[in-house]
Amino acid sequence: MSDDDRLARVALSRLTEPGDPKIASLVAQLGAVKLREVLSDPTQESPEARDVSSRLRGVDPAAELETGERAGLRYVVPGDDEWPTQLDDLMRVELLDQRGGPPLGLWVKGPTRLDQLGRSVAVVGARSATTYGTEVAAGIAGALVRAGHPVVSGAAFGIDQAAHRGALSVDGANVAILACGADRAYPTAHHDLLDHLGRTSAVIAEVPPGCAPTRGRFLSRNRLIAALTRGTVVVEAAVRSGALNTASWATRLNRYLMGVPGPVTSAQSQGVHQLIRSGAASLVCYGDEVLEIVGESGTHLVTPPRAPSRPRDKVPPRDARVLDAVPLASPAPVDSIATTAGMALLDVQAALRRLVRDGLVELSERGWRLTPAANE
Amino acid sequence: MSDDDRLARVALSRLTEPGDPKIASLVAQLGAVKLREVLSDPTQESPEARDVSSRLRGVDPAAELETGERAGLRYVVPGDDEWPTQLDDLMRVELLDQRGGPPLGLWVKGPTRLDQLGRSVAVVGARSATTYGTEVAAGIAGALVRAGHPVVSGAAFGIDQAAHRGALSVDGANVAILACGADRAYPTAHHDLLDHLGRTSAVIAEVPPGCAPTRGRFLSRNRLIAALTRGTVVVEAAVRSGALNTASWATRLNRYLMGVPGPVTSAQSQGVHQLIRSGAASLVCYGDEVLEIVGESGTHLVTPPRAPSRPRDKVPPRDARVLDAVPLASPAPVDSIATTAGMALLDVQAALRRLVRDGLVELSERGWRLTPAANE
Repeated sequence: MSDDDRLARVALSRLTEPGDPKIASLVAQLGAVKLREVLSDPTQESPEARDVSSRLRGVDPAAELETGERAGLRYVVPGDDEWPTQLDDLMRVELLDQRGGPPLGLWVKGPTRLDQLGRSVAVVGARSATTYGTEVAAGIAGALVRAGHPVVSGAAFGIDQAAHRGALSVDGANVAILACGADRAYPTAHHDLLDHLGRTSAVIAEVPPGCAPTRGRFLSRNRLIAALTRGTVVVEAAVRSGALNTASWATRLNRYLMGVPGPVTSAQSQGVHQLIRSGAASLVCYGDEVLEIVGESGTHLVTPPRAPSRPRDKVPPRDARVLDAVPLASPAPVDSIATTAGMALLDVQAALRRLVRDGLVELSERGWRLTPAANE
Repeated sequence: MSDDDRLARVALSRLTEPGDPKIASLVAQLGAVKLREVLSDPTQESPEARDVSSRLRGVDPAAELETGERAGLRYVVPGDDEWPTQLDDLMRVELLDQRGGPPLGLWVKGPTRLDQLGRSVAVVGARSATTYGTEVAAGIAGALVRAGHPVVSGAAFGIDQAAHRGALSVDGANVAILACGADRAYPTAHHDLLDHLGRTSAVIAEVPPGCAPTRGRFLSRNRLIAALTRGTVVVEAAVRSGALNTASWATRLNRYLMGVPGPVTSAQSQGVHQLIRSGAASLVCYGDEVLEIVGESGTHLVTPPRAPSRPRDKVPPRDARVLDAVPLASPAPVDSIATTAGMALLDVQAALRRLVRDGLVELSERGWRLTPAANE
């Protein structure tokens, strides 16, 4: 892209809030350079337009880029090699809460290139998470990075933090998308975490450096988490959790949406259960099950969890028929077992002898009965 | 039905194991009376057939009916007023583990008529249940009976017992289907429970009085639980739980299949999660959600659980736009908030004053910030 385009986008992003669909639409129609030019015109009629124009002329985008660079930030715009083209899906998607559209550009801190996030997966959820939720989130995030899927989250307390932490334990991309400037730490308690991610992977923001987080910016940020990734895993979410807003974006963008169940008695799982129950989200329990959904076909089909095999499993079919006919509680004589099994007496007696050898039945004074091993 | 038919069915049920598809198929083709006649013929070639014939001629079905009656048992057969016609679905369904077909008849103890079970719902699950599972099962069973849906279960330890117990606390049908004779108590620890159900509702068995439970009979019993009910709720089930066998029957019979999620770290929920994940079962959390699925349309649509409303919810849209623009962490001056909100300074100032009155923002030395109430 031309330097002019980049400068125009920096300037426009100072003027507008992230996720403003009017600006996205005007940029799509006129281009950023032309839009900046039109809006900067000081000879306009309405006071609002003149105010916009004066504010826009007050921005020095070249200086902003330089300041950003000194803070280790680069500004990635559509057309750059590094631009994550999956964000262009935001051009074609309906608004949510009057927000939408692709970002003008993204401020990025860290070595991870944005065009390497095509296989990334978002792991998000409640800030007031339970230890159950944070354990599961960390486990899933670790499994994703281990399998070469970058993890994306929002660096908030609770599930987000657990996801970043879980991904930290493995080499791989571990990306935070913030609602404030990429040079800031919100929440401040996550300063060290964000510093680490900014040195080893990537911290991303749509709003310019220095900007504070607002509720509106969180909502706009959520659309980027959903759009940048191949799928979103919601680990815990109460019925009004912000994570459900990210989930709505994932659905809207036709990304995979997955939810981790929990106790029905836990308020933190209610929102997730609603997502699964309504069919919006697939139920996932482990990292492997997430990989089965987001991974390439043929690479991650999960072997369903199996219980350890039981002594009974190894019994051949005809002996199993006899075993099935031995009473569970009170002992029975061989002829009654033969009747139940519908087999000849001699065959049943031979089978019982083999089953004794396997430790599955025993002969008591009152007849044959199952051993505890057979009841496993 | 003719007395002959009933007598023939009693006799045949002494000869064969429950769920034997060969017998069901022969009864469907020849009728029970004719089949008994054919099998009783003492002049047959093969030793097996002669053995069957002699055993069949040794049964005195009239005496069995009388003995049953003295024990408070009646034998309900197809064609009886009380016959639950939903069991006829078993005629048209594929075998599972080489079992299938409708029962020859059902031994019933208790005042509940079987033709009143058309709205019944099965609540089943692991014997080695957790307290979480038993609490949820009891709650769901209670809600079902309260809404006029009889509860059916298997009287086993764990979830079954919890379901019967939960249904006990409400007036309504509470039905146990056993793998042993309806006159027996298995497990023996549930003697009092079964005695109570047999006096107040119904205890049902396919096998004749006196018969012991075997593994095979449990598998055959499971098909009756699924077939008799409109839907099956699996509350907890490890990956090899017998409850999954009942679930397979419910699917096969095109009944509603529902599963209660739990912690992914709980082995007792693994089987249920697989059912939900595969799409076989719908996720349900509460009795109301079960009723939404099994109840008549228009009677039980669930209002999704909602969090208590927050102070922020009552703010009108334009003020909410200002509220969304107030930083979450560090305070901001009014002009910066106006820029973020994209609104005129005077309007923003007026909105901020209203938000102060609502206790949502406050003016500190360094500017406006959200109050804790706004962050709820």
